[in-house]
Amino acid sequence: MITPQSYKWFFEATTPVEGHMHAIVRTVVQAQTKFQSVEILETASYGKTLVLDGRMQSSQADEFIYHEALVHPGLLAAGGPPETALVIGGGEGATLREILKYPSIRRAVMVDIDAEVVELCRRHLPEMHRGAFDDPRTAVRHEDARGYLERTSDRFDLIISDLVEPLEEGPACLLYSKEFYKIVHDRLTPTGTFTMQAGMTKVADLAFFTAMHRTLREVFPVVAGYQSFISCFGTPWGFILASKKIDPRRQDAATIDRLINERVKGSLDYWDGLTHQHAFALPRHIRKAIDAETRVVTDARPLIVA
Amino acid sequence: MITPQSYKWFFEATTPVEGHMHAIVRTVVQAQTKFQSVEILETASYGKTLVLDGRMQSSQADEFIYHEALVHPGLLAAGGPPETALVIGGGEGATLREILKYPSIRRAVMVDIDAEVVELCRRHLPEMHRGAFDDPRTAVRHEDARGYLERTSDRFDLIISDLVEPLEEGPACLLYSKEFYKIVHDRLTPTGTFTMQAGMTKVADLAFFTAMHRTLREVFPVVAGYQSFISCFGTPWGFILASKKIDPRRQDAATIDRLINERVKGSLDYWDGLTHQHAFALPRHIRKAIDAETRVVTDARPLIVA
Amino acid sequence: MITPQSYKWFFEATTPVEGHMHAIVRTVVQAQTKFQSVEILETASYGKTLVLDGRMQSSQADEFIYHEALVHPGLLAAGGPPETALVIGGGEGATLREILKYPSIRRAVMVDIDAEVVELCRRHLPEMHRGAFDDPRTAVRHEDARGYLERTSDRFDLIISDLVEPLEEGPACLLYSKEFYKIVHDRLTPTGTFTMQAGMTKVADLAFFTAMHRTLREVFPVVAGYQSFISCFGTPWGFILASKKIDPRRQDAATIDRLINERVKGSLDYWDGLTHQHAFALPRHIRKAIDAETRVVTDARPLIVA
Amino acid sequence: MITPQSYKWFFEATTPVEGHMHAIVRTVVQAQTKFQSVEILETASYGKTLVLDGRMQSSQADEFIYHEALVHPGLLAAGGPPETALVIGGGEGATLREILKYPSIRRAVMVDIDAEVVELCRRHLPEMHRGAFDDPRTAVRHEDARGYLERTSDRFDLIISDLVEPLEEGPACLLYSKEFYKIVHDRLTPTGTFTMQAGMTKVADLAFFTAMHRTLREVFPVVAGYQSFISCFGTPWGFILASKKIDPRRQDAATIDRLINERVKGSLDYWDGLTHQHAFALPRHIRKAIDAETRVVTDARPLIVA
Repeated sequence: MITPQSYKWFFEATTPVEGHMHAIVRTVVQAQTKFQSVEILETASYGKTLVLDGRMQSSQADEFIYHEALVHPGLLAAGGPPETALVIGGGEGATLREILKYPSIRRAVMVDIDAEVVELCRRHLPEMHRGAFDDPRTAVRHEDARGYLERTSDRFDLIISDLVEPLEEGPACLLYSKEFYKIVHDRLTPTGTFTMQAGMTKVADLAFFTAMHRTLREVFPVVAGYQSFISCFGTPWGFILASKKIDPRRQDAATIDRLINERVKGSLDYWDGLTHQHAFALPRHIRKAIDAETRVVTDARPLIVA
Repeated sequence: MITPQSYKWFFEATTPVEGHMHAIVRTVVQAQTKFQSVEILETASYGKTLVLDGRMQSSQADEFIYHEALVHPGLLAAGGPPETALVIGGGEGATLREILKYPSIRRAVMVDIDAEVVELCRRHLPEMHRGAFDDPRTAVRHEDARGYLERTSDRFDLIISDLVEPLEEGPACLLYSKEFYKIVHDRLTPTGTFTMQAGMTKVADLAFFTAMHRTLREVFPVVAGYQSFISCFGTPWGFILASKKIDPRRQDAATIDRLINERVKGSLDYWDGLTHQHAFALPRHIRKAIDAETRVVTDARPLIVA
Repeated sequence: MITPQSYKWFFEATTPVEGHMHAIVRTVVQAQTKFQSVEILETASYGKTLVLDGRMQSSQADEFIYHEALVHPGLLAAGGPPETALVIGGGEGATLREILKYPSIRRAVMVDIDAEVVELCRRHLPEMHRGAFDDPRTAVRHEDARGYLERTSDRFDLIISDLVEPLEEGPACLLYSKEFYKIVHDRLTPTGTFTMQAGMTKVADLAFFTAMHRTLREVFPVVAGYQSFISCFGTPWGFILASKKIDPRRQDAATIDRLINERVKGSLDYWDGLTHQHAFALPRHIRKAIDAETRVVTDARPLIVA
Repeated sequence: MITPQSYKWFFEATTPVEGHMHAIVRTVVQAQTKFQSVEILETASYGKTLVLDGRMQSSQADEFIYHEALVHPGLLAAGGPPETALVIGGGEGATLREILKYPSIRRAVMVDIDAEVVELCRRHLPEMHRGAFDDPRTAVRHEDARGYLERTSDRFDLIISDLVEPLEEGPACLLYSKEFYKIVHDRLTPTGTFTMQAGMTKVADLAFFTAMHRTLREVFPVVAGYQSFISCFGTPWGFILASKKIDPRRQDAATIDRLINERVKGSLDYWDGLTHQHAFALPRHIRKAIDAETRVVTDARPLIVA
C-alpha cells in the first residue's frame, strides 16, 4: 500500500458514505463571510484550492478543465461571435477569464452575492483570475442573481450558472428551479445559450444532474448534458448546456476546432473538437438515467443535495 | 457539510497525498493467498468490491463500466467475428463474462496465477462472473502468464491484460514491459488486438498511462488510449488498445452500434457507439501528455507505481 | 511522521471534533440484534474488540484494565467477603469473570437485555469470558434491568452498571437517573456498593462523569469517582463507586493489597494497592469539576451523550 | 454514532496502526525551520496546539497538565527551595513559566536549538508562555544542549528534558543516552533532580518509557516513573524523575501540599498532593513492564521511536 505522507487532510464527504481526501500543505486564507465559510487551501497534489462551506470548488491544477468545460461549449454554440455574457456566482474569476478570451465579447457581467469571497479570490488566486477582474469589459455586481435578472433589461448571448449546489433549503434553491430558468431564458438573445455546472455524475449519484436536465427541458428546446472528470473532486462532473437554437451535439470536432480558431484568442488546454466529442458523448447508462428522469424542480418543490 | 454515517472505512491512497474512502458495510471474505491479500468488502455505495493488496479492483455497482470498457473495444476492433480470447489476470470472471457475450467465441482462456483469488470470486461474487467459469468455452489456468504465452502455440483474436499495477519490483513487472508486449504481439492473429487496463488518468498522475502507451508503440502499429470514469476508484481510468490493423478511433458511432448488433448477444449497459466516442476522444491535455512521453518500459527498466 | 499501514480503519468520533482510529485486521463477526448493531473487530494493536452501535466497548489487549477497574474496588469496599453480585449489561462476560475470582461469591447475576450480543461474545470472545458463563454460580437473564430490580426481592453486595452510555433519548436513559439509583440503593445489602462505568474524563469532556457523580450523591452517602486509562478508547475513563458505608478513598494501599490477598483467588494484572491509589487520587482539575457540578439527572431530565 | 463536523483534520499516527484525530479550526502559523516543520493549529476541542514534525506537543486546553507534571515533581523533590533550573527544549515557554512560579529561582536557562520555533511560540502562544521569556531570571540559548552541558560550569537544582522523541537516527539520539544522562547527573547540584518527558504509556507501547527508565537507573540512585493523561495526545504520557537523593514516591500528599504552599507563588491547576499520588502510583502492569526491561540506551545503540 502507498502510505499517506501528511498529517493534515481535507476530507470531502461526496455522499455520507463516500469521500475524497487531500493532504493539506497550508491554509492560505480562511474567513467567514455573511453567506458562507471560505478557505483557500494549498493541497499537495493540486496546489491552491477554493473551498466554500467545506466543498471544494476548484483547484489550481485542474481548474482549466472545469472552467473551460463550463464556458466554451456555450460560447461556441452561440449563433455568432458572442458579445455579452453573464456569470452567476463564479467567485474565482476564472469563468470570466475564459469568457474574456473571446475578443467579440464587449461586456461580461458577474453577479456573485458574496463580495468577500470575490475579494479573497482576487487577492489570493491570481493564478485563477489572471487579471479578469481588471478587464474593462468586466462588471462585477454583488447582489442576488435572481433579483438582478428580474430587473435588468439587458440580454446575454451566454448565461452561466457557476454556483454551489443547494446544500440546504434556502435562497440558493431559487437559482435551481424551473421558474428561475424561465427568467434566464427570457434574458438570453435569440441564439443565446445557458450553461450550468450540474453536480456529480458518479454512477450511483446522478439524481441532481438528471433532475436539472429534466427541469431545463421544460424551458429550453435544446438541452444537452455533458461531463468532464474534475480530478480534485474525485468524481466525474456534470454540466448542462441549454440552448434556444444550436444543439452542441450536432457540432462535430472539425466545427468546434474551426470555431475556436475563429472566435478565441489564445490557446485552450482542455477544450477542442475531440474533447467536445468526449464530453457530449455521454455514456449509455447516463443517457438512460436522463431518459428515465421525471422530476421537475420548482420553487415550491426544491431539490436539496443531501 | 455532509457528515459520514459509518465507523468503518476503506481508505485507498491513490497517491501518497490523495485518497478515496468508502464506508464499509461488511467484510464478505478476507484471505491471504500465496501471492497477495484478498478481500471482498461490501461498501455502502457500491455493493461488493474486490480488494487485492489494499487496491480496489472492481465494484458491483460500476464493474459493468470497467469490464465493458476493457473487453468490447478490442473485440469490436477485431478483423472479423472473434473466435479466441485470452485474459491475463481477470480474477472476478467478469472479463470472461463480457467476452462470452460473443457467440463467435469458441475458446476463452484465462490465466490468473492466483487460484485462491479466482476460487473466492467464484464463490462470493456470482453477481460478477454470472456463471462465466462454467461456460464450456472457458478454460482457466493458474500459472505465470508470460511463461504460458512463451510456451503456447495458440493464437488469439484478443488478449486482455487485466492485472494489478506493479506496486513493487517483482514478477508483475515482467507483464508490463516491451519484451512482454512483443510476446503478446506474436500470439495475436493477424487482425487481433491487445487491450490493457493502464492505470489512472487523473490530471497530475498520468505517468503510468503515458509510459505504457509509449511502450506499446514500440511494438504495435496502432496504439489507442481511452478512458472511462470508474466511480468507485475516485479517478478516471485509462485503457489502451493496441492493434495490428484496425484503429478504433476510426470506427464511428454507427459502426460500433452495428458491430455490437451483429456480434454481441444480449445487451450492454455501458458501451455503444456514443460511449465509444466518449472514451476514445481523449481530452486535449491527455493527448499532449501522450505525445510528450518518451519513457519505454523494459524488463531491465521496469516502472513501479509508487 | 509515522505512516499508517492499513487500508481499513475503525473510526470512533469521541466527540464530533475529536476521534480515535484503529487499523482493522479482520471482522470476526457482524450482526444487527433487536437492540443494537454488534461487531467483533480484530484490530492490529489491541486484538479482538467488541463494538456496539459503533462504540468500542473493550479490547483483548487492555480489557483487563477496564474490567478489573470496574469490579474490584466495589468488591474490596464491601463490608465483608462478598456473596452476591449483580451486573447490569456486561455482555462480554469479563465483568462476571472478575467477580467470580472471589470464592466467597455464591451467586452472580447478569442482566443484559440483548441475548444475541451475549451469545456472540460467548462464542467469539472466549479470551474475555474464560468460561464465566458456565460457572454454576452465574445466572444470566435477558430482560430490562430496571424492571428486574423493581421486581426482585434479592439483595446484592455489589451492583455494577456496565452499560453503553445513553446516545439518544430512550430506555437506556432510565438506567442513568436518580430514580434508578434509588432502586439500586434499595437492592444493596447494608454494606453493599454500586459501581458504574461513567464515561470519559478527557479534560474538556467531563460533563457526563461529573453529572453522574452529582446524581449519585443524591442517593448515596459515599460517592467516589476514579479513573483509568483505557488505551484503546484513546481517552481516560471514569468510574464511580457509590457506597452505603466504606469510602474507598480511605482504604490505603496496604489494606487493598491485604484484602486482595484474603478475598481474591488468582492474580490480578492491573489492580492492587498502588493502582487503587492511582485511580482514586483524582487530579485536581477533575475534583474541581466534580465540586462545581450542579446537574442532577432524573427520569424527567435525562442526559444524552452527544 | 456521533458524526464529525469538520472537513479539515489533523491526524496523528501514534503507531502505524493507531491514530488520533482533531478537527482543525484554523492554521495560526506554519513554517519550516532549519531543524523541523512547525505549526500552530487551532483545534476545535483544545484551542491552539503546537505541532513539530507532525507530532502534537501541547494544547491550550490541557498544557497545564503536561507542563505542571513536567516541572513540579522535580522542583518539589529538590533538597531545598530551588535556585537554578535548566530546560532542554521547551519551545512554548510554558515549562519556563511553571519554573518561574518559584520565587526562590534565581536563574532559569532554556536551551532550545531551534530559535525560530521559540520565536513563533513567543509571538503566537502568549497563552502558554505568559511572559516567561521576558522574566529577568530567564536566559534563552539556541545551541546544542549536549554541547552546552559539556562546556558549562554551572550547576542546576533541576534539569528538564522537554524534547521531541528521536523519530529517526540523528543528533536527537545523543540527548537520550546513558552517556548524556551522565553529563546531566554531573551538572546537577547534590540534591538536584532531572525530569524528562518519556513518551507514551499506552498498554502496548511502553517500550520507550521503560527503556528510558532502565537507562536512567544506570546513572541515578533514584528513578521514579510517573504518568499523566494528556487528553489531546489520545494516550497517557510518561515522565521520569531521576534524583540523587529524594524519592518522590516517599513524599506523601500532605508533604506535597505543604511544599507547594511554601515554595510556589500562585496556584496550580493540576498538581497537588493527590495528583502526585495519582501520577506516581503507577498501575501494576506498568511496574511489571519496568521491572522486566533490560534495554540500556547508549550513544552507540540509540532507540528510535518508530
